[in-house]
Amino acid sequence: MQTFFSEDHRLHFPQGELHGGELVTPFERPSRVEYVLRQLKERGFPAVTTPDAVDLSIAHRVHDAGFLNFLETAWDEWKAAGNAGEIIATGFAARRMSGAFRPPPRDIDGKVGYYALAAETAITGGTWKAACSSLASAQSAQRHVAAKGGAAFALCRPPGHHAASDMFGGYCFINNAAVVAEMFRLGGAGKVAVLDVDFHHGNGTQEILYARGDVLFASLHGHPEDAYPYFTGYADESGEGEGEGATANYPMRPGTAYGEWSQALDEAIARIKAFGAEALVVSLGVDAYKDDPISFFKLESEDFRRCGNRLAKGLGLPTVFLMEGGYAIEAVGINTVNVLEGFAEG
Amino acid sequence: MQTFFSEDHRLHFPQGELHGGELVTPFERPSRVEYVLRQLKERGFPAVTTPDAVDLSIAHRVHDAGFLNFLETAWDEWKAAGNAGEIIATGFAARRMSGAFRPPPRDIDGKVGYYALAAETAITGGTWKAACSSLASAQSAQRHVAAKGGAAFALCRPPGHHAASDMFGGYCFINNAAVVAEMFRLGGAGKVAVLDVDFHHGNGTQEILYARGDVLFASLHGHPEDAYPYFTGYADESGEGEGEGATANYPMRPGTAYGEWSQALDEAIARIKAFGAEALVVSLGVDAYKDDPISFFKLESEDFRRCGNRLAKGLGLPTVFLMEGGYAIEAVGINTVNVLEGFAEG
Ligand SMILES: [Zn+2]
Ligand SMILES: [Zn+2]
Repeated sequence: MQTFFSEDHRLHFPQGELHGGELVTPFERPSRVEYVLRQLKERGFPAVTTPDAVDLSIAHRVHDAGFLNFLETAWDEWKAAGNAGEIIATGFAARRMSGAFRPPPRDIDGKVGYYALAAETAITGGTWKAACSSLASAQSAQRHVAAKGGAAFALCRPPGHHAASDMFGGYCFINNAAVVAEMFRLGGAGKVAVLDVDFHHGNGTQEILYARGDVLFASLHGHPEDAYPYFTGYADESGEGEGEGATANYPMRPGTAYGEWSQALDEAIARIKAFGAEALVVSLGVDAYKDDPISFFKLESEDFRRCGNRLAKGLGLPTVFLMEGGYAIEAVGINTVNVLEGFAEG
Repeated sequence: MQTFFSEDHRLHFPQGELHGGELVTPFERPSRVEYVLRQLKERGFPAVTTPDAVDLSIAHRVHDAGFLNFLETAWDEWKAAGNAGEIIATGFAARRMSGAFRPPPRDIDGKVGYYALAAETAITGGTWKAACSSLASAQSAQRHVAAKGGAAFALCRPPGHHAASDMFGGYCFINNAAVVAEMFRLGGAGKVAVLDVDFHHGNGTQEILYARGDVLFASLHGHPEDAYPYFTGYADESGEGEGEGATANYPMRPGTAYGEWSQALDEAIARIKAFGAEALVVSLGVDAYKDDPISFFKLESEDFRRCGNRLAKGLGLPTVFLMEGGYAIEAVGINTVNVLEGFAEG
């Protein structure tokens, strides 16, 4: 299986993540990908391919133009305003704010709060370029699969599934999964499925696709009563309008192990089959792992191989794997490549 | 004029405020009140009075019970969860979160994000007691005015006007102004006005009173396109239902000086008069001052005296002044007491 990967991910390395009331070294850090690269090499995967240049026209189909412009220009504006640190949102367009859906403020602090859904995620001087390089890997993987069938892996960093149509957060800026799904549609696939196995709910992907009947979004994740991002991913969120029934959420409780998790996976696979998807996008987070530092599922490393195997056997679709979360560092590599190997063996 | 003040404000002294991407010493700090106390003393005001015990039953009339319980218990829950720092929200119930209006999550991180409207405001072990003592001062001031007429000053800290029915932020936890307005109503006033002259929009007070026709809320503040809290306070926000017409917003642009500001003040005074208010609550922030570090109006210290004078001459109502913001430290005392003196001379 071919891997697409850009070294430009290194351009995004915030010094601080707001966590437990302190600024700590972010859990989502550049070294995560080193463990994946090492495992790919050790297990004889082909050398990684540097992606083609990013095509932002497709990002504009799933994201708001003002939001993308904000991501590109925020750093300069933030620094020009005399801020000493990295960009972290303070005042949010939260529940009780009557003007939350007006156009964004002019002030940079206000813009940051308008476009942010969380305060743990910093924007740095290199974030926009890194996010574009992450999307470029996703796009090259899609083109590879569209041309040759089978499967490909985009080792994306920063990840994308928390990024909504016009909001960043949860370490995410551009929604790679939504863009890749759109590319499959533009390439002629009648229906496409996005399966999100990251521990956290793919709130951004869901929001972007919520009213669409041509792309199914299915997600296995920690219950929103218990887990970040908290305010999306309930089982009764099933889409709206033409998209009614094209969103499938499987929230699960703390301590969930592979037995229960794989039942949800089987249900999601059945939904994708019944939906008639002609291509599959997998938001591949491996933070469902038992030792992940910020999650609470109990999957073993071998369970990730089983997961990949089930996807191949159960669906057999042209498939793009996109790296999302996973923070147990060493295990991120083992578990990610286990999914890919399990799929290749399926 | 009598001042009500509790030393328990000192129990709330967060070490960190998220500002410009860094954790800095909060602008809203205990020393602010020292400057006010000094000016009161220097100018011959009566010695401050320690308030009676807080009456939370009235706070329950303007705030959500789950929210008040959260404020009281959050610290223990946060520490029990192993967090090292003070309570600062990370994941928010922001614009694109489909479950933002569901009941709060069970997880403490989720609860904090649910009840927070901003990330600059930390909750500490002493915050609840301090917020209660701040409310106690406000309540004692109200009782004083209700019994004897005239005016009184509550030197409240932490402030209250950003606190919504079920959200904290902007250095605020319990909305003292809304509680005092409610006490005037319970005491027999047919109509009450809250005038907010703090530089920042009193989003919390507005939200609590938005559908009420018996309490007018009028606010002079930095335009939400330019100033925190950004997402409320537009001129077209005028109330809803029975409260339609009982909200009056006067947003003003960067650099606004007393000439324009006092015109808005006169308009607000005319509105309060036409409304038929029998009592007045003044959310007295002095961050409209030209040298305030986080604001952009250009009022001189003498303008604050004029402001107080106009309130007395223009309305002559039983009046409770509640301390809100003002961060230029030394000038906070001068400007605050200028308002009170100007009122007393009016
Ligand atoms: Zn995740
Ligand atoms: Zn203020």
